[in-house]
Amino acid sequence: MATVSPTPLLKDELDIVIPTIRNLDFLEMWRPFFQPYHLIIVQDGDPSKVIKVPDGFDYELYNRNDINRILGPKASCISFKDSACRCFGYMVSKKKYIYTIDDDCFVAKDPSGKDINALEQHIKNLLCPSTPFFFNTLYDPYRDGADFVRGYPFSLREGVPTAVSHGLWLNIPDYDAPTQLVKPLERNTRYVDAIMSIPKGTLFPMCGMNLAFNRELIGPAMYFGLMGDGQPIGRYDDMWAGWCTKVICDHLGLGVKTGLPYIWHSKASNPFVNLKKEYKGIYWQEELIPFFQSVTLPKDCTTVQKCYIEISKQVKAKLSKVDDYFNKLADAMVTWIDAWDELNPSVAKSAELPNGAAK
Amino acid sequence: MATVSPTPLLKDELDIVIPTIRNLDFLEMWRPFFQPYHLIIVQDGDPSKVIKVPDGFDYELYNRNDINRILGPKASCISFKDSACRCFGYMVSKKKYIYTIDDDCFVAKDPSGKDINALEQHIKNLLCPSTPFFFNTLYDPYRDGADFVRGYPFSLREGVPTAVSHGLWLNIPDYDAPTQLVKPLERNTRYVDAIMSIPKGTLFPMCGMNLAFNRELIGPAMYFGLMGDGQPIGRYDDMWAGWCTKVICDHLGLGVKTGLPYIWHSKASNPFVNLKKEYKGIYWQEELIPFFQSVTLPKDCTTVQKCYIEISKQVKAKLSKVDDYFNKLADAMVTWIDAWDELNPSVAKSAELPNGAAK
Repeated sequence: MATVSPTPLLKDELDIVIPTIRNLDFLEMWRPFFQPYHLIIVQDGDPSKVIKVPDGFDYELYNRNDINRILGPKASCISFKDSACRCFGYMVSKKKYIYTIDDDCFVAKDPSGKDINALEQHIKNLLCPSTPFFFNTLYDPYRDGADFVRGYPFSLREGVPTAVSHGLWLNIPDYDAPTQLVKPLERNTRYVDAIMSIPKGTLFPMCGMNLAFNRELIGPAMYFGLMGDGQPIGRYDDMWAGWCTKVICDHLGLGVKTGLPYIWHSKASNPFVNLKKEYKGIYWQEELIPFFQSVTLPKDCTTVQKCYIEISKQVKAKLSKVDDYFNKLADAMVTWIDAWDELNPSVAKSAELPNGAAK
Repeated sequence: MATVSPTPLLKDELDIVIPTIRNLDFLEMWRPFFQPYHLIIVQDGDPSKVIKVPDGFDYELYNRNDINRILGPKASCISFKDSACRCFGYMVSKKKYIYTIDDDCFVAKDPSGKDINALEQHIKNLLCPSTPFFFNTLYDPYRDGADFVRGYPFSLREGVPTAVSHGLWLNIPDYDAPTQLVKPLERNTRYVDAIMSIPKGTLFPMCGMNLAFNRELIGPAMYFGLMGDGQPIGRYDDMWAGWCTKVICDHLGLGVKTGLPYIWHSKASNPFVNLKKEYKGIYWQEELIPFFQSVTLPKDCTTVQKCYIEISKQVKAKLSKVDDYFNKLADAMVTWIDAWDELNPSVAKSAELPNGAAK
């Protein structure tokens, strides 16, 4: 793939989803990379506020009134006053691929000083296979100058389709509130020139700041949960989506990559506010992680939707003892799938894998 | 830890093990880093040949006659005419840590042009914990400028003791013969500035070229098998050790790291010769990997030795159908443990973990 393409990669097959509460001046810096693509902006908070989008960008914008109008009672599954609302954009997209980015993320530079086209790297990650069944010590075996090392089984070298590309952050790292409080001055300056598949059976903390995925392969699992207004928890939206997504990818034989590309994360959020949002999550996650580590999905779960509904049942059965919130969340997971299938009738059908594809 | 230490780290607690068939001129380049340490040289091939070691190094050297004299009939478990013989050096060491390196590996440079002290980095890796139970997207959370990211369970942040540090190679990558033949000119020029724990339950291809481990924690698992002279296979010595080691580390709750440090691998071995050594391994590994992926060790396997004997039984039971060679290998695994315990009576005792430490 050439670095400078006459036509940007997947120009008509990818939407950029941005949740925001403010004018999108940050897009100016992304103009050379994002302008050819269509944007889906999900406006959080007060719907009467006008969000300014720089000239020249092709976009659609949804505020809370739009969400309520489009989803009706099912709008209850979309969070309010939390960036979790971004997943509404995944649902209304008609494209095969999604890239989502926060509005405090800017273009980072690689060690040679060159601007990093994060979107292009995500697309490359998504278009090339993953290798979740065995670890390759030279990282992504498909990159230029790399391959599978001695001892890597040949039967596994075709890899599996990549569903998720998780990008990283220079400058402000994605820390929880306690770590922010303890290390207020820590900055991520280490550019690690690697992309790797997260092994099957291993969970990871998926951050929604700089994330791309194949909507056809995994879209319905990318539900960012019930966070923010009226909910006892925040800042676990992407984590929740990541746990569900990874378990489903493992079950369906799909890949999840992490590593490049980096974006420049400009501003640490307020650790005191974050602590208030996170504190229940911080102790709940001690039970959530073992739960997700032990989830098994039956063989007849051959679509993302079926897997997701099955997980919602297990959430209700096993996590409601942690807090009643998980009953509500399990119901919202079902509502989310209903709404997804309503807005994506053909995708819902085509998402059915051939018999026996699940393992 | 300072880069320049007045006393080199673990000076009296680490042996450097080098298998060789030639004069050790390569040590000249390593002098600033290796000279303070004790070397154990395992001379392969013709024992009457004299191996020259540069002046000023503190070493002991064992040739085949020494191995036969020391081990008696048990010497049958040590390979001949194959670098697998290096594991004899692990057995006769009296130190807590081992670093092993091939004699065609030289000092690499980091991106700033500075010589990499590979041994120092390995020691740092071994002295700091591993995190095999959950993936940290910013890699080693204990490095300067890094930490656990948002969503990483706090209960897992202490990590577990590190048993193995697997280093990488610039210039000639560690490829199998088919890949060497297909990509004769490929060189690894990508310096990936990362160290990571290989997740629990994930196997990896462990290369013996640039490898360090905690002998007290995992030594008896570092058997490099029956390779070379009189055997149907070669170049799977380190792979075999890696599969056994990883399964045992996972069972005992120990960590395996890979990534930094790099060494400069100077010369590709002959791909035609390699193909002859490897070809059985290339198809056997298609059955070996699933075997090791499904090995489970019973709870009463609380020492590395007990785990290793249990694996030898499973090898005999399940792999002898692949080839009769695995009967011979399973027997050699038992002989290896017998010999290890004979030479390491006190370590064998102290290796017993407290009740319940195995999982």
